[in-house]
Amino acid sequence: MKRATALRMIPYGMYVLTTKSGQGEDVDAATVNWFTQTSFSPPLIAVGIKADSKTHAFVKETNVFAINVIGGDQINTAFTFFKSQERDGNSIVGEAFELDPETGCPLLLNSPAWWECKVVGEVAQGDHTLFVGEVLEAGVRREEPAILMRDHNLNYGG
Amino acid sequence: MKRATALRMIPYGMYVLTTKSGQGEDVDAATVNWFTQTSFSPPLIAVGIKADSKTHAFVKETNVFAINVIGGDQINTAFTFFKSQERDGNSIVGEAFELDPETGCPLLLNSPAWWECKVVGEVAQGDHTLFVGEVLEAGVRREEPAILMRDHNLNYGG
Repeated sequence: MKRATALRMIPYGMYVLTTKSGQGEDVDAATVNWFTQTSFSPPLIAVGIKADSKTHAFVKETNVFAINVIGGDQINTAFTFFKSQERDGNSIVGEAFELDPETGCPLLLNSPAWWECKVVGEVAQGDHTLFVGEVLEAGVRREEPAILMRDHNLNYGG
Repeated sequence: MKRATALRMIPYGMYVLTTKSGQGEDVDAATVNWFTQTSFSPPLIAVGIKADSKTHAFVKETNVFAINVIGGDQINTAFTFFKSQERDGNSIVGEAFELDPETGCPLLLNSPAWWECKVVGEVAQGDHTLFVGEVLEAGVRREEPAILMRDHNLNYGG
């Protein structure tokens, strides 16, 4: 179908979106690719989150989230978080994290960079909600661009 | 600065966003990269458009726009539409187009693929407005992914 074929021509990077529950005890991590910056001043980003997911519920409860860049040696991390996983202390399926002191969202220690965001807008239509977040804080552990889905024969679009 | 460094690690494709004036006489074309799909059903996409641009004014007037994929041999097209250009009959600076019969937006004939969209939501914060569009129609002239900014040492983010 033309529409799906065309939509699969969009290149995407890959990221792990991390969230916490409203009570702050539980955390979640999900691989996402529908992600873009949307403003320089203030710095805003937008991310599409599956409407029936635990991640979505946590963002609605807390109005905060973090985005962790998936770097060149982390394709296994991308696969790990295609499905929801359980927290085990300060790691999730072997991925160590620390909790951001401000938002309480997990920051994956192996990720090259991350952003902490608070929700400032959303468009809730279709099977994903588009959340717009203002970047509160960011960190860079090493300068390494996000891996590309197309380099790993992956696609989430169409 | 960490935030800008991190934001420049996001990979982007490149596209020409085409619009028409409310009267339908004038058209505009602008190179964009803040673009992502945001839903499968219905098919939605989102694009960030500079708030003080002619493109932005046209989208607000008409509630429709088209996205044209920039393919591998079209880097000059990307450069052409970094700034607003004047229509010359059925071309803009040598880029031939046809007008979509439904929306009236220009479809660039050299582009590998395109989508026609109607606006169904927006988040107007910061220096760009994020418009969410439902894909009404799409076309594929050849299966060729969008070129990557990083492959051409370009960046629009930070």
